[in-house]
Amino acid sequence: MPSFLTFGADGFEAAFTALLHAKRETDQDVRETVAGIIRDVTARGDEALYDYTSKFDRFDAHGAGLAISSAEVDAACAEVDADTAAALQFAADRIQAFHARQTPEELDYTDEAGVRLGQRWSPVDAAGLYVPGGLASYPSSVLMNAIPAKVAGVDRIVMTVPTPDGVLSPLVLLAARIAGVTEIYRIGGAQAVAALAYGTETICGVDKIVGPGNAFVAEAKRQVFGRVGIDTIAGPSEILVVADNKNDPAWIAADLLSQAEHDTAAQSILITDCQDFADAVVKAVDVHLQTLPKADIAGKSWADFGAVIVVPTLLDAVSLIDRLAPEHLELAIEDPESLMSMIKHAGAVFMGRYTPEAIGDYVAGPNHVLPTARSARFSSGLSVYDFMKRTSFVECTAQSLEKIGPAAVTLAHKENLDAHALSVAIRLKDRQS
Amino acid sequence: MPSFLTFGADGFEAAFTALLHAKRETDQDVRETVAGIIRDVTARGDEALYDYTSKFDRFDAHGAGLAISSAEVDAACAEVDADTAAALQFAADRIQAFHARQTPEELDYTDEAGVRLGQRWSPVDAAGLYVPGGLASYPSSVLMNAIPAKVAGVDRIVMTVPTPDGVLSPLVLLAARIAGVTEIYRIGGAQAVAALAYGTETICGVDKIVGPGNAFVAEAKRQVFGRVGIDTIAGPSEILVVADNKNDPAWIAADLLSQAEHDTAAQSILITDCQDFADAVVKAVDVHLQTLPKADIAGKSWADFGAVIVVPTLLDAVSLIDRLAPEHLELAIEDPESLMSMIKHAGAVFMGRYTPEAIGDYVAGPNHVLPTARSARFSSGLSVYDFMKRTSFVECTAQSLEKIGPAAVTLAHKENLDAHALSVAIRLKDRQS
Repeated sequence: MPSFLTFGADGFEAAFTALLHAKRETDQDVRETVAGIIRDVTARGDEALYDYTSKFDRFDAHGAGLAISSAEVDAACAEVDADTAAALQFAADRIQAFHARQTPEELDYTDEAGVRLGQRWSPVDAAGLYVPGGLASYPSSVLMNAIPAKVAGVDRIVMTVPTPDGVLSPLVLLAARIAGVTEIYRIGGAQAVAALAYGTETICGVDKIVGPGNAFVAEAKRQVFGRVGIDTIAGPSEILVVADNKNDPAWIAADLLSQAEHDTAAQSILITDCQDFADAVVKAVDVHLQTLPKADIAGKSWADFGAVIVVPTLLDAVSLIDRLAPEHLELAIEDPESLMSMIKHAGAVFMGRYTPEAIGDYVAGPNHVLPTARSARFSSGLSVYDFMKRTSFVECTAQSLEKIGPAAVTLAHKENLDAHALSVAIRLKDRQS
Repeated sequence: MPSFLTFGADGFEAAFTALLHAKRETDQDVRETVAGIIRDVTARGDEALYDYTSKFDRFDAHGAGLAISSAEVDAACAEVDADTAAALQFAADRIQAFHARQTPEELDYTDEAGVRLGQRWSPVDAAGLYVPGGLASYPSSVLMNAIPAKVAGVDRIVMTVPTPDGVLSPLVLLAARIAGVTEIYRIGGAQAVAALAYGTETICGVDKIVGPGNAFVAEAKRQVFGRVGIDTIAGPSEILVVADNKNDPAWIAADLLSQAEHDTAAQSILITDCQDFADAVVKAVDVHLQTLPKADIAGKSWADFGAVIVVPTLLDAVSLIDRLAPEHLELAIEDPESLMSMIKHAGAVFMGRYTPEAIGDYVAGPNHVLPTARSARFSSGLSVYDFMKRTSFVECTAQSLEKIGPAAVTLAHKENLDAHALSVAIRLKDRQS
């Protein structure tokens, strides 16, 4: 059974706080293991990759090579049926169209003092995309990770995907081709992250690594951070659905289960202003669970981490939403805009009764790589900006340096940085020092 | 002596690669120590902070309390002379004016399918600013870290600064007041980062932590990353000066020394197309070193990590610049724009003969917190964007869901996510499933 909370009731605050701090991730201590793998890959390069691939993916890649060849991709793509290929292309086009609107702002102006100032954006040279293997190998995630890099103008988009027992995923490879991935390697785990960060004989290192993975992959990304850029560390998926009683309970129940089916550690929460509706949704969840293929996973997630919160009015939901800072927020209510305008922290919002969260996983356009575990308080979904960086610039003339230089000289001396002061003062007519 | 390299000469590539990979940071293994401090602060809260402050800063803060009071700030600010106060305010105004132009782009549009799409930006609720103590306690850094948070609209701007032997820095406190810092605590080290990330009885936790620090602070930021956001991990400072022979060698020498004086691990590199000019700059460096207060530090940095590279033409500098991806790049040449337009990787560029890098440290306006150690390949200087996050949104109507929903249903089934498919299909008139 999920938790049931009533806003304002005795014990609500304690129960809500418990919900906020529920530990959903298993805390594996993988630090030493990962550090060892990274050391090994930097020391032995390709041979370390072959060894780990044999060990973890049960595949000796010496014959086929680490790279998945263009011919292999051709052959795999040919296996995808036309309907699915069309749906993937449709999704890619919509994702591309949305991300193309994320155009970071350039600045170039001259201020009152006569100083030219600005910032320019440029793409990273090479991006690495980690794609998990096996069941969690989602073609939609390939699109969501690679397309923003492509839109940003990244030249090399390098994908790694483990191929357990040597089996390739046709859909993942087709998605890679559609999204514009330029190189693909059949490796996974911390060893793939190490190879992307440090390079080997076969694989040139990249500048930024993105994509989801297990605890080993997440820890590897954490350890290579600084040498390369990384995206945020993804945790189990979450959805918070705010719904009034004019919704069909079966629709809302399906939405809650769409996150619950990802992972037993996923979390689905319903906030509603109607107790009867809440009860109806809970019943509808049980009905769906009777037929869903992933009922075991979804049922366990719903029982362990699911919650239903009844509030007196939908306005009372606002502060709860911000405290939960959900990855996905559905506002299945009459006037979603009014609530949306009051909310500060959420990764992505799905507005109205006809916008199930799953539409955003595939075809809406915005990215489905979103901040989990309340990190929407400080971070954002993946975007074109993640594959670009800014360079600021300043240009003084002799005249404008006269205007702004003296204050710099004063401050540099106060910070005991006299060479700093000298480098400005030496250029001033009236030599301060 | 610095290294001397001649582009195209025998051994150039090997020497340049050595320069790229010179290990300037000492690799202290501080992981376990830091993990222990973080565990202790989360377990014992304020008492742990008092203990570490006694131990590392030789100050028992039980009397004064962890917070630096408004009265203490008043008293400290009164000690600052009027000239310095005016210079700080001048710098703050210019930094504020530049950062106010960093206005992230909102999106809100309806596409051809009738789907409303967009993104909104909002500030984090609370930012933590780590300020080092003692000699590295720079008021200019307080301005550079706090003002972007203020411009972003952050409500709580929380500063921590260790006060060795209980001594407050008037300039740092005045800078904090000018910049709009809202709370100040006299703590430092990994314990300050832990307190900012997890909170204690006295200190409410924040959402994002920025600011430079030693190896312990950097490692603590790395370990709390995910619970809160962090900025990039700062390494020793660097400058790359590209100069032709029409510059005064003494000016260019001062610029090189302005980074060298920061740290014996700092790096200053000159690229020029004139051997005679290179020799003149090297001589001018030695002349300046005879009078500079920090000649010991600057001289050692220049000898150990400095380099002079002579290129046949300034165009040959472009690929070297991108490979070095310098934190600071000075283009002291006739037509800096022509080179600037070809460069992909640099944190900040200082254009022309009258723009010494130090002007950017204090009063130019753009941020002086910049990517070091070649991380300009993938990251950017601190900005307003670092204190904000995006929320994407989607709003479908019954009609637009009919148009884009079927492709989502197809893909969800292929990914074996049937609840995802159901949540879309259940809303379609012609119930696919």
